[in-house]
Amino acid sequence: MTSTVDLNADMGESFGPWVMGRDAEVLDVVTSANVACGVHAGDWDVMARTMADAVARGVGIGAHPGFPDLQGFGRRKLHLPHESLANLVQYQVGAAQAMAEAAGGKVRHLKLHGAMANMAAADHDMARACYEAALRVAPEIIIMVMAGTQQQAAAEALGCNVACEIFADRAYNADATLVDRALPGAVIHDADRAGQRITQMVKEGAILAEDGSRIPARIDTICLHGDTPEALDIARAVRRQLEAAGVTLQQFEGKPL
Amino acid sequence: MTSTVDLNADMGESFGPWVMGRDAEVLDVVTSANVACGVHAGDWDVMARTMADAVARGVGIGAHPGFPDLQGFGRRKLHLPHESLANLVQYQVGAAQAMAEAAGGKVRHLKLHGAMANMAAADHDMARACYEAALRVAPEIIIMVMAGTQQQAAAEALGCNVACEIFADRAYNADATLVDRALPGAVIHDADRAGQRITQMVKEGAILAEDGSRIPARIDTICLHGDTPEALDIARAVRRQLEAAGVTLQQFEGKPL
Amino acid sequence: MTSTVDLNADMGESFGPWVMGRDAEVLDVVTSANVACGVHAGDWDVMARTMADAVARGVGIGAHPGFPDLQGFGRRKLHLPHESLANLVQYQVGAAQAMAEAAGGKVRHLKLHGAMANMAAADHDMARACYEAALRVAPEIIIMVMAGTQQQAAAEALGCNVACEIFADRAYNADATLVDRALPGAVIHDADRAGQRITQMVKEGAILAEDGSRIPARIDTICLHGDTPEALDIARAVRRQLEAAGVTLQQFEGKPL
Amino acid sequence: MTSTVDLNADMGESFGPWVMGRDAEVLDVVTSANVACGVHAGDWDVMARTMADAVARGVGIGAHPGFPDLQGFGRRKLHLPHESLANLVQYQVGAAQAMAEAAGGKVRHLKLHGAMANMAAADHDMARACYEAALRVAPEIIIMVMAGTQQQAAAEALGCNVACEIFADRAYNADATLVDRALPGAVIHDADRAGQRITQMVKEGAILAEDGSRIPARIDTICLHGDTPEALDIARAVRRQLEAAGVTLQQFEGKPL
Repeated sequence: MTSTVDLNADMGESFGPWVMGRDAEVLDVVTSANVACGVHAGDWDVMARTMADAVARGVGIGAHPGFPDLQGFGRRKLHLPHESLANLVQYQVGAAQAMAEAAGGKVRHLKLHGAMANMAAADHDMARACYEAALRVAPEIIIMVMAGTQQQAAAEALGCNVACEIFADRAYNADATLVDRALPGAVIHDADRAGQRITQMVKEGAILAEDGSRIPARIDTICLHGDTPEALDIARAVRRQLEAAGVTLQQFEGKPL
Repeated sequence: MTSTVDLNADMGESFGPWVMGRDAEVLDVVTSANVACGVHAGDWDVMARTMADAVARGVGIGAHPGFPDLQGFGRRKLHLPHESLANLVQYQVGAAQAMAEAAGGKVRHLKLHGAMANMAAADHDMARACYEAALRVAPEIIIMVMAGTQQQAAAEALGCNVACEIFADRAYNADATLVDRALPGAVIHDADRAGQRITQMVKEGAILAEDGSRIPARIDTICLHGDTPEALDIARAVRRQLEAAGVTLQQFEGKPL
Repeated sequence: MTSTVDLNADMGESFGPWVMGRDAEVLDVVTSANVACGVHAGDWDVMARTMADAVARGVGIGAHPGFPDLQGFGRRKLHLPHESLANLVQYQVGAAQAMAEAAGGKVRHLKLHGAMANMAAADHDMARACYEAALRVAPEIIIMVMAGTQQQAAAEALGCNVACEIFADRAYNADATLVDRALPGAVIHDADRAGQRITQMVKEGAILAEDGSRIPARIDTICLHGDTPEALDIARAVRRQLEAAGVTLQQFEGKPL
Repeated sequence: MTSTVDLNADMGESFGPWVMGRDAEVLDVVTSANVACGVHAGDWDVMARTMADAVARGVGIGAHPGFPDLQGFGRRKLHLPHESLANLVQYQVGAAQAMAEAAGGKVRHLKLHGAMANMAAADHDMARACYEAALRVAPEIIIMVMAGTQQQAAAEALGCNVACEIFADRAYNADATLVDRALPGAVIHDADRAGQRITQMVKEGAILAEDGSRIPARIDTICLHGDTPEALDIARAVRRQLEAAGVTLQQFEGKPL
């Protein structure tokens, strides 16, 4: 039996003259790109370039909406009524659809950004409001969810197309939640270890927690980063080891849970 | 022979807690609404409300993109490379499409706003860049152009769907350009006179200049305003007198020039 | 013994072409103006006009800083590190000082806006961080605090110049906190009743709660609003009745608590 | 006779999570820093850090105001009425004064940024409007001007404190204007050549044009850049060669022209 998995990373987070991340190098590693939509980061020019580059390399395009807080990069909590949240998501998805189309591609998936993502991971109703909004304007869109969170539960309840995501550089607890960043070992800095760990999880179809427990899980995509040299090393190690283990790297299908 | 014409006005120009215009009252007068797209004015919540109201009353929805200059309301000239201009227009059209779709409607037309519109009226290549961008993501979109300007020429050259617009409250020169606002009589303040004048132009299929000359023109839509009590009076008088003269008020078809 | 009190209202909350409030009319009622500083509302042009108008009428000028959230008008909670909060307050106070100076006036007081104010009313350390920041760049500034809240406690602990504020249109609980807006009677809509109530409080030097209890308090200023016709009626009634009762309306002195 | 000169560079141009320039390294080279004021670049947190770093190293602080166009980095022309321009400059100078004061320093000089600077270099009245605005709120401020432009003429006419600036990496025409960037040799890429050239100009008290002509000029400060490795090399070479030639590097005095 052949395993397949997708590799995703955030991209298009530059703004005006300010460059963020090494998008060109990351595009050579991933199969899916989460593109900022001009609200917490990115702008129309950055989106156009990023999407053209993704299309040129056959990388799948996702809309990556965030909170309207440029200085805070969408990482600060904002408590919005669900209706406003829905409008905010629809606006960004629509803008991304047009920019993708103009670049000769299309928006395949949705991934929430920053504080919006973290709040939705813990709040079923909020996650649902965001996802319903995206589905209203893109019924076939694949919702990328953090495995084991309320994001996943909300997407499952909606019966929509889903891609379940695990993190290449984060340790897991026995209940499939992430180890708190304040604890030692929460973040994995060793590229080879990250690569071995992820390869094992993908082969076994399970999240492997730090305490040795094994939580069976659908793993559709691996979240990578490219904003530091270390992160890029990890991204490359993950790709290399997955390929060495015979795992096929390709865009997720997005079937419902 | 029955005459028909469309009435359009800018709408959805509120922002956050700041209200602009009397959208509810204007919606009762017009047949098409040019909805700000969250860049020079409007935001996702304002767009959602405005589009829902337009859909509820059968008013046609247009994307009304502008320059990224909220404080200046998109009325200050900004010199952008055509590529950036195209990205800027696509972004806004895409956002508007999604918001319209979520409201149960669709974007029928495009009208440029403020300084972007004025610059394009005098610059064929700029107008073309904006319109091509919109057509790339919405091939059937109807381009609303100021009659007799480079906007019209550019849309005609593209062979796209077009709606030709004249102004209810502005006097015309013999070459179909608008009388300079600095000159006396450039702006028409009398509601009845505005109504009579427009009705005559629509019936005759011609722009009637201040010097008495008559320039045959396709008149698809009349631009109204609703941001002052006077403007609203003019809008209502125009509608009333057109109806009294047997002109049918309905959304433009948008056939190519 | 003659009573004196100050009347204050928020002002300068327009932005670009969007008008908010009836500043000209409110300026005829108040003795102190809380001027938005271009972050949650207002811009440099609005500030310049507002401050010139305040100077022309002898109304005291206050800096009214808020969160960087224009669409949300600074009314949405934002959790910032105290250091960022301090920078944010300093930035706005400095901008206000320059604009006031250019208008021939000076910034006499500080009043926090919206969610920043509400959060500081419940969080002593946050209030202290904001006030220390303002005092660092304006050591003589008078800190306007909501009577009976952590704002007051923090300003008292700092030993700085203070003006204690009560609300003209809000009912009080027996512990001097405001009655929850969700409860009936929380907001006073009757102009005469508001005027009588405030006059009595000022004369007695006490907050009069809805249950009849009387909490002795230093009352330096009354918070008025001018954003609706009703609010303006209340503002005028408060002024009229205070004057009728022999209370002198003048800018607060700002002595420490 | 000992020569002295100041070295200046733009700084504090990061925004939120986006880093621009190598401020820490540039601070080791310059004697004056032009700090962005949160409008075209920078924010309150960036300003606070930048000013604290400048104070710690004894580098002079300047306010560096620009146009309200974050995405365009203040490099796009914006045509503002002089009154708005004045408000815009005052706002930024005031914010900078407060941030500098909180950091234990003070704003010594003003330098216009980007398109605002370039437009003022060619427009005497615009330069005057900007400088008068700054002087209204900071009468002792030293106006840094591009030697030989309308900036210099306007500052001279005002009789205010002035620092005349030449560019380390730009070739000059015989009339003291800069060689057009489109022409070969307009920008100097060789660090040693830049250092020799500037040292000679400072020693001779004259701008040395490409055609060999020599235009006597007061040279108070050299404009350096630090946003690329090459720029930083040039900056360091200029400093090294000036020191080797016995030129004392220190903040300009700012005496009137």
